[in-house]
Amino acid sequence: MAHNAELISVGTELLLGNILNTDARFLSRELSKLGMNVYYQTVVGDNPERLRRAVETAKGRADILITTGGLGPTCDDLTKQTLAETFGKKLVFHAESAERIKDYFEKNLHNAPMPENNLQQAMLPEGCVVLQNDWGTAPGCIFEAEGCHVVMLPGPPRECEPMFSAYVAPYLRELSGETIRSRTLKLFGMGESAVESLLRDRMNALQNPTLAPYAKTGEVELRITAKAASDAEADALIAPVEREVRGIFGDLIYGADVGSLEEVVLAALKERWLTVSCAESCTGGLIAKRLTDLPGASAAFKGGAVTYWSENKRSLLGVPQALLDDKGAVSAEVAKAMAEGARSAFASDLALAATGVAGPDADERGNPVGLVYVALAAPEGTFCRELHLGQNRDRVRTSAAHHAFDLVRRYLQDIPLELEAAK
Amino acid sequence: MAHNAELISVGTELLLGNILNTDARFLSRELSKLGMNVYYQTVVGDNPERLRRAVETAKGRADILITTGGLGPTCDDLTKQTLAETFGKKLVFHAESAERIKDYFEKNLHNAPMPENNLQQAMLPEGCVVLQNDWGTAPGCIFEAEGCHVVMLPGPPRECEPMFSAYVAPYLRELSGETIRSRTLKLFGMGESAVESLLRDRMNALQNPTLAPYAKTGEVELRITAKAASDAEADALIAPVEREVRGIFGDLIYGADVGSLEEVVLAALKERWLTVSCAESCTGGLIAKRLTDLPGASAAFKGGAVTYWSENKRSLLGVPQALLDDKGAVSAEVAKAMAEGARSAFASDLALAATGVAGPDADERGNPVGLVYVALAAPEGTFCRELHLGQNRDRVRTSAAHHAFDLVRRYLQDIPLELEAAK
Repeated sequence: MAHNAELISVGTELLLGNILNTDARFLSRELSKLGMNVYYQTVVGDNPERLRRAVETAKGRADILITTGGLGPTCDDLTKQTLAETFGKKLVFHAESAERIKDYFEKNLHNAPMPENNLQQAMLPEGCVVLQNDWGTAPGCIFEAEGCHVVMLPGPPRECEPMFSAYVAPYLRELSGETIRSRTLKLFGMGESAVESLLRDRMNALQNPTLAPYAKTGEVELRITAKAASDAEADALIAPVEREVRGIFGDLIYGADVGSLEEVVLAALKERWLTVSCAESCTGGLIAKRLTDLPGASAAFKGGAVTYWSENKRSLLGVPQALLDDKGAVSAEVAKAMAEGARSAFASDLALAATGVAGPDADERGNPVGLVYVALAAPEGTFCRELHLGQNRDRVRTSAAHHAFDLVRRYLQDIPLELEAAK
Repeated sequence: MAHNAELISVGTELLLGNILNTDARFLSRELSKLGMNVYYQTVVGDNPERLRRAVETAKGRADILITTGGLGPTCDDLTKQTLAETFGKKLVFHAESAERIKDYFEKNLHNAPMPENNLQQAMLPEGCVVLQNDWGTAPGCIFEAEGCHVVMLPGPPRECEPMFSAYVAPYLRELSGETIRSRTLKLFGMGESAVESLLRDRMNALQNPTLAPYAKTGEVELRITAKAASDAEADALIAPVEREVRGIFGDLIYGADVGSLEEVVLAALKERWLTVSCAESCTGGLIAKRLTDLPGASAAFKGGAVTYWSENKRSLLGVPQALLDDKGAVSAEVAKAMAEGARSAFASDLALAATGVAGPDADERGNPVGLVYVALAAPEGTFCRELHLGQNRDRVRTSAAHHAFDLVRRYLQDIPLELEAAK
């Protein structure tokens, strides 16, 4: 049976444009993975009357209703009261949740005594399934009434997202009575529209599994989703489509069900006990920043030099002045010398470098905005890739970092780099 | 007269969670600045029947209805048709828009011939105000019907946002018959709830201007908004409240109507012809990345060293091994030595450093996650700040970078740093 889910996000801060509604995006995406339709999302403020009206409208057209926000301890937090009233339920005190809230305060906020109003969060609709919150204080809940499954989750994404994955997704999966499995292939090096045009006929022909591309900055995700009676049957439906897609895109695909490109790189470095460093000009620290965003980066990442001015390319990385004078800071030769310089300065196994024109203006040699060289220094030699990344500063920098990671990803996955080295 | 505005975002990609609804956030914020209430936001897919229902619901409770999305050339783009039908209007061909669309293709996409269906975008509701699109192909429009002002804007943020600012905001301002001016004070160094509790009584007492805090990562914005018959009168209402707020928060306020903390820092560096460099451990390139996010950073930012491993703190920055052994890499002494080392290695006027424990685990000396030292090396001496930034890796890194920028901001704004130097 196909289910219609509807989202109601509660919070005046959303109506004031103070925060982005990332919960709606996350939940929509997860619901779509579960094979559920979402036809409407609504945002209302911390106002019980308007929330009640939104709920009345939603329950007439959806059988799964998910709210986010308004579960906290302040007098603005009225979601539970309003939903319980709308569905004719009482709120009752849930002792276990009260204990959890007290515990949370003791463990995480030990300098502040717990204000009494926090216990309001332990008042929950009678007969509900309590969703414990291991990431904050407000528990969520699920109840069934009037043919509708009502799910309430806290608003902060760091609570809402893990609670959905841990408790709500299994509940909804059970509801649908079938298994839905998906596998996501991650691809770097081809734009979304090119990917889509290569796959359009297959996408239209496929019913189960389905195949859908999702664009992310500089990357494309290809999601294959199958419904079946069991996990094994679903996987058996997915496998041939995955083989087919891999046949089309080959080594542009950098992994399946994996994290970001830099996560794949970091994991591969650790697996091989290799270290890396970097030398950055146009990316200005972005490569180092993205690697060190990842917990445990220090096992493989030794450090980096941001040599924004040419004099520092010489003094810190030992790039010869003659090379800088002759070829210019934005050149394949200097990119390679920077990578080799970082490899030696940081005594790392591998080193990445990026030099280019991020804009807004062309450089003093007239190199256009978007011209970037990324290089990888390795024991086998130094490889370089020339890029033309368009006019947008952010996109130039982000793409350049992506390409640097892609270079080392290919090296670590034993994909030959000769052609690129020839440049 | 107070106006009630309502947003309807049209696009199946929003319901699938494929993109974030940044338009809703932008428009909500701009409408709030214009003094307009927003009580509901709705998202629907590219489905004329469900869109029609959302419009019927909205027009019963709002007098300004703004749609985004669904104005493009494909058969999915049905917003204009649906809105026109719902309000009993015909679509008519708008020759000037057709010319603009052809022009846009010639200028921006000169390799591709214009597909004929693009001219569908020139069909607009009879009697509407046409909003020309200088950032893409689909024009927007405004019409008035049944007591409602209906505004349609394209979905892509790079088109929606400038079109709203250029054409819709002036239209709405006219409608309200009064001037609304706001001034935003930016504050770093106190949490939102502390700021709010200091201001609560005043916020509640004030009617015109109003005063409202907005939390951003690590910062608080205080927006003072006044309505009056003229700009001068509005400014005269704002001035005493600004003085009062400045009296409360003093030098925690780093600027009024300014960009981010790093933008303020970069502008102040350029104004004084000073250069800066940085040495980063726990922030892993984030300080350099944030400075080089800004166009024109190279005028003041010379470079940075990301010395993630201790050996590089010694080899690149000249931090004495004895200091590292004695005090440990996470110490005020090492933070200062790193800043001084960067100042010398990059030959910059000033240098920032950050060293600390970003987590997830305590360091090998047992320093807890969240302990960070940031330092500023200047000709007058080296200043250091000790920080305890909690358990969350992202927040520790972001906050540490904020504090480093705050240190140099204070230096550049001639705020005495003695106390911090004493640590």
